[in-house]
Amino acid sequence: MNSISVIGEHTLMLLELLATAAFALSGVIAALRKRLDIVGVCVCGFLAAFGGGTLRDLLIDRRPFFWVEHQFVLLGILALCVLSASLLKQRHLAWTHQSLQLPDAIGLGLFCATGVHLSWMTGQPPLVAMLMGTITGAFGGVLRDLVCNEIPALFRDHRPYALCAFAGAGGYVLVTWLGADARVAITTCAALTTGLRCLALWRNWRLPSQTP
Amino acid sequence: MNSISVIGEHTLMLLELLATAAFALSGVIAALRKRLDIVGVCVCGFLAAFGGGTLRDLLIDRRPFFWVEHQFVLLGILALCVLSASLLKQRHLAWTHQSLQLPDAIGLGLFCATGVHLSWMTGQPPLVAMLMGTITGAFGGVLRDLVCNEIPALFRDHRPYALCAFAGAGGYVLVTWLGADARVAITTCAALTTGLRCLALWRNWRLPSQTP
Amino acid sequence: MNSISVIGEHTLMLLELLATAAFALSGVIAALRKRLDIVGVCVCGFLAAFGGGTLRDLLIDRRPFFWVEHQFVLLGILALCVLSASLLKQRHLAWTHQSLQLPDAIGLGLFCATGVHLSWMTGQPPLVAMLMGTITGAFGGVLRDLVCNEIPALFRDHRPYALCAFAGAGGYVLVTWLGADARVAITTCAALTTGLRCLALWRNWRLPSQTP
Repeated sequence: MNSISVIGEHTLMLLELLATAAFALSGVIAALRKRLDIVGVCVCGFLAAFGGGTLRDLLIDRRPFFWVEHQFVLLGILALCVLSASLLKQRHLAWTHQSLQLPDAIGLGLFCATGVHLSWMTGQPPLVAMLMGTITGAFGGVLRDLVCNEIPALFRDHRPYALCAFAGAGGYVLVTWLGADARVAITTCAALTTGLRCLALWRNWRLPSQTP
Repeated sequence: MNSISVIGEHTLMLLELLATAAFALSGVIAALRKRLDIVGVCVCGFLAAFGGGTLRDLLIDRRPFFWVEHQFVLLGILALCVLSASLLKQRHLAWTHQSLQLPDAIGLGLFCATGVHLSWMTGQPPLVAMLMGTITGAFGGVLRDLVCNEIPALFRDHRPYALCAFAGAGGYVLVTWLGADARVAITTCAALTTGLRCLALWRNWRLPSQTP
Repeated sequence: MNSISVIGEHTLMLLELLATAAFALSGVIAALRKRLDIVGVCVCGFLAAFGGGTLRDLLIDRRPFFWVEHQFVLLGILALCVLSASLLKQRHLAWTHQSLQLPDAIGLGLFCATGVHLSWMTGQPPLVAMLMGTITGAFGGVLRDLVCNEIPALFRDHRPYALCAFAGAGGYVLVTWLGADARVAITTCAALTTGLRCLALWRNWRLPSQTP
């Protein structure tokens, strides 16, 4: 491996850790808004960070989970939850939430790409692999909202989020069918997902509402 | 296989697809009542249609899930969700819900019978197999209500639904103990469950309430 | 095995059954408060009694579940749910809840010890085993609250409960590292957890709240 690809590997790992931390912080914010205690904060942070991948692994029967294999990332995320819960005040929450949107979009792309790739490798059919990618990227937030006793934002805010991941996962399947190798397919999926999500945020896209 | 049994097989498959569609529509209705977006509609429809069987398979550690094995049924159900969400207006919901009660009762019977049979085949003890049949038939609706942030109707409407499935599953275990073969036991379970549910709807049976 | 250790085994089994019953009753109480029907009562009782261990087994991919292996305990717990739902009136609920705190603390200790031991035996890393112990002891109540459409008390009441279990599980890991055998480690975990929980109740300990 030459030095450029080593730098690439490290950049990717750094990006993934950054995205996991951003996901966890979204859980901490949701928990603090509901005035949960430190246990609730840690569970919400954990679910937001690792819930999507864990749900995918339960469904495709894959072990060990990421957080079992990487005990120190788990420890770091729990420490981040405790630390940020002590430092964040209620008036910081809206601002922090806002500033997380870019790392969150990057995380959506990376996790969706990992999810669709892992599912594809275990031989899931294309539509199922696309759903698994979407679940990996977007359903941590669903679990976070469910334990906060909210209808998941993913299901009601009429903003494209899961659909960006689903489209990105479709990109993976498409370029794989066209003969591209895994690295290209993963990059396509992550770039397409993150790009669509950023575009949706920037252009303020809304999903159509039901006519009354 | 003679032509009558071929017709029987096709009728059964058609009934199962019809019942799955009726379950999915109950999810679409619940989602539209909560004014969820298209992602929420698809998730609610998916959970109502496939959630019970998926929960059973997670518990008895069985793979692949029905919707992984039959990718095109999954695609059809998702298409049905998108289509019906576009067509159904708020004023149609009560009427649609009402007209789904018969196909829903048929689905309860069929899914309960499949669930208890599959669990029995994997060697679960009788009471567990009966619970698995009940979960297969009735817990898709529970998952649907949970993501809609409602106490599941199954737990609070004081109407016999899960109990019909549980009784039907008891019928499966009973006739199996009496020496009947699988086909007879499955038919008994489905007929008993659907019959009891229809009777409960027709006679307006209510479960006893707690004295205050 | 001499007669003293036989008495010990029987005492432990009796304690575990007592604790399972206390957990189930907490589910019955939560269900009756929400005026659920008999199906809701049984599901809440089941989840409170067996939910934590079942969630742990799903996560560490262990089968059969306790209630599948011990069908008669399952039958007994369901009978207890039906019976207590018929006998308990609304004005009894607060009193019953209060009198369950000691058996509940014993159950927290026993289930946490079992959970951390089983996870340790299947080779989970220390932090994961500690979380699994905590989940076994404390997450039955989380599932119970979620189906009752409440934010789980575990996440918002600012009382040490999960933290007692986590500390007790830490005790297991510590004495195991110091070379103690399994029996000593399990006893340490159970005693530490139950002791801390009783101390927290007696001294009315509260977790710190977020500064506004």
